[in-house]
Amino acid sequence: MQNVAELTKNIRQKDRRALSKAVTLIESTRLDHQNQAHSLLAELRKKPQTGLRIGLSGTPGVGKSTFIESFGMMLIEAGLSVAILAVDPSSSRSGGSILGDKTRMPRLSREPNAFIRPSPSRTTLGGVAAQTRNVAELCETAGFDVILIETVGVGQSETMVADMTDVFLLLLAPAGGDELQGVKRGIMERADIVVINKADGDLKAEATRTASEYASALHLMRHPTTCPEGYPRAMTISAIEASGISAVWEAIEELAKWRKETGVHDQMRAEQAQRRFRTAVEDRVMARLKADPAHRAVWAQMEAAISQGEITPDEAATRLLNKVFAGGGTGSIF
Amino acid sequence: MQNVAELTKNIRQKDRRALSKAVTLIESTRLDHQNQAHSLLAELRKKPQTGLRIGLSGTPGVGKSTFIESFGMMLIEAGLSVAILAVDPSSSRSGGSILGDKTRMPRLSREPNAFIRPSPSRTTLGGVAAQTRNVAELCETAGFDVILIETVGVGQSETMVADMTDVFLLLLAPAGGDELQGVKRGIMERADIVVINKADGDLKAEATRTASEYASALHLMRHPTTCPEGYPRAMTISAIEASGISAVWEAIEELAKWRKETGVHDQMRAEQAQRRFRTAVEDRVMARLKADPAHRAVWAQMEAAISQGEITPDEAATRLLNKVFAGGGTGSIF
Repeated sequence: MQNVAELTKNIRQKDRRALSKAVTLIESTRLDHQNQAHSLLAELRKKPQTGLRIGLSGTPGVGKSTFIESFGMMLIEAGLSVAILAVDPSSSRSGGSILGDKTRMPRLSREPNAFIRPSPSRTTLGGVAAQTRNVAELCETAGFDVILIETVGVGQSETMVADMTDVFLLLLAPAGGDELQGVKRGIMERADIVVINKADGDLKAEATRTASEYASALHLMRHPTTCPEGYPRAMTISAIEASGISAVWEAIEELAKWRKETGVHDQMRAEQAQRRFRTAVEDRVMARLKADPAHRAVWAQMEAAISQGEITPDEAATRLLNKVFAGGGTGSIF
Repeated sequence: MQNVAELTKNIRQKDRRALSKAVTLIESTRLDHQNQAHSLLAELRKKPQTGLRIGLSGTPGVGKSTFIESFGMMLIEAGLSVAILAVDPSSSRSGGSILGDKTRMPRLSREPNAFIRPSPSRTTLGGVAAQTRNVAELCETAGFDVILIETVGVGQSETMVADMTDVFLLLLAPAGGDELQGVKRGIMERADIVVINKADGDLKAEATRTASEYASALHLMRHPTTCPEGYPRAMTISAIEASGISAVWEAIEELAKWRKETGVHDQMRAEQAQRRFRTAVEDRVMARLKADPAHRAVWAQMEAAISQGEITPDEAATRLLNKVFAGGGTGSIF
């Protein structure tokens, strides 16, 4: 590896090659790469971080790419730099992803002040989230003003993105009644700003009506300790006409400013970090447990017994641990 | 211990002494008691379970006890039997709890067809939830028609109760705007029925208005795979005047019937059990990890380093596991 000090310097100048090299280290499964990535992040963290992390969730077809393109270009034109990351648990992309991003966000992908990185492709969502969290940190220490992390909301990915960002947006299409089909329970209440897209042409009136319904709903769900008056908020935009986008950015800035001034921002980040630590320990322990074929077999056996109603989940857990940690013939996996 | 077969027989006859004995076994930390409890539950589970598990959450002062008293008495008068359990992570009650319940629910606590059990007092919320889940199962196999599990909603207790029940109610007071102060983010979306209490006297109009606001909000948050048209629902009651209580029960019954007929009920229970299994394994592994003072010290050290921004949460987890599982001088705790 390049000297850490030199790589650090180049990353802080947002040097594309240095950034890509660091991302490769972060995403690598090789232990030496992981260690290098940790040293690098530790070095980079010495400088205070000031970037804003924005989470964005929306089901496929809602216009996420178009929104990111419009939103990102607006920031670039305002003189800001933007990193676009993704948490996509279904991603199996590896090399061909750059072409994908060029198609999805043609203008943004050509901007020198934009850095677009597709979702890492790992076997576990926890792994994807951990890497994205570290890449977000890298981008922030590199001096990007805005780090936008998008997700399609499969499985727990929305919760994970909300847990690594400062402001969380939910992008919805205008529709009556069944909007939340495809949005997981509990995510609406994580949203700081609900953005109703497609407020153009025939759908404009419907979008406005939908936003006003969500505005009332969100008002009832206000959590005054983490949001000032007026948030969570519902807004309409047309990503395709790039209208309403600057109002969304103003709302994000206002909320972020309030959170920074009240200490909520720092508190959220601190809680997120401690939560991530606990989850990371659990993930690693469970991964060790499941890496052993014998234990995986016991695991499956216990799941089947639970399904059959032969055993309570708690007893199944006790039995599993007794087998794993018996210290008998097979020995401990740890 | 009494013969398992005999205890099983007596429990199925809802014999109070047999039930209390079984609960004592379930709540005991002694390994032999735990084993006996598991054998007993395994035996009891052989008979199909038909009881309905209802979760109820509400912040202190919202009228939870009065609601349970009215709701429970209505069920008793309709010829049903009711078990009332609680998940209260702040509970430090041990022996004096019976008096508490007699004060909280004076009529219900005298009814032979009601079984009231306060929250087990354990050090971890996970432990409290696990025991309550098993006591709920005991009550169901004992033949109770309704098992109501209440919680004050501290920490993750609401999520845990929602994860062990078939229908989840959220009890709120009538109020404008800031209702959700004290209700955790994401819980509103777990509610199948939002019950606005205190729809009496001066507050009646306000309660009706609040319910209508929540009705609109809940409609937007409908998840069609787990709820039929019309759910989640918002309703008003007066617990103190016992009005609206039977309508709440009708709504619960209608929803439960739909879920049973569509297979959602069985699917929810199966998913809850598998989720509980994974959580139980994680809890047990983490408890072993934290039981060792040396590892607890490393844990605290890592948390401090994360707070200082010296280390990423993921690297802290890696370091912790390396120390724990090094297999070096101190050996493995497992």
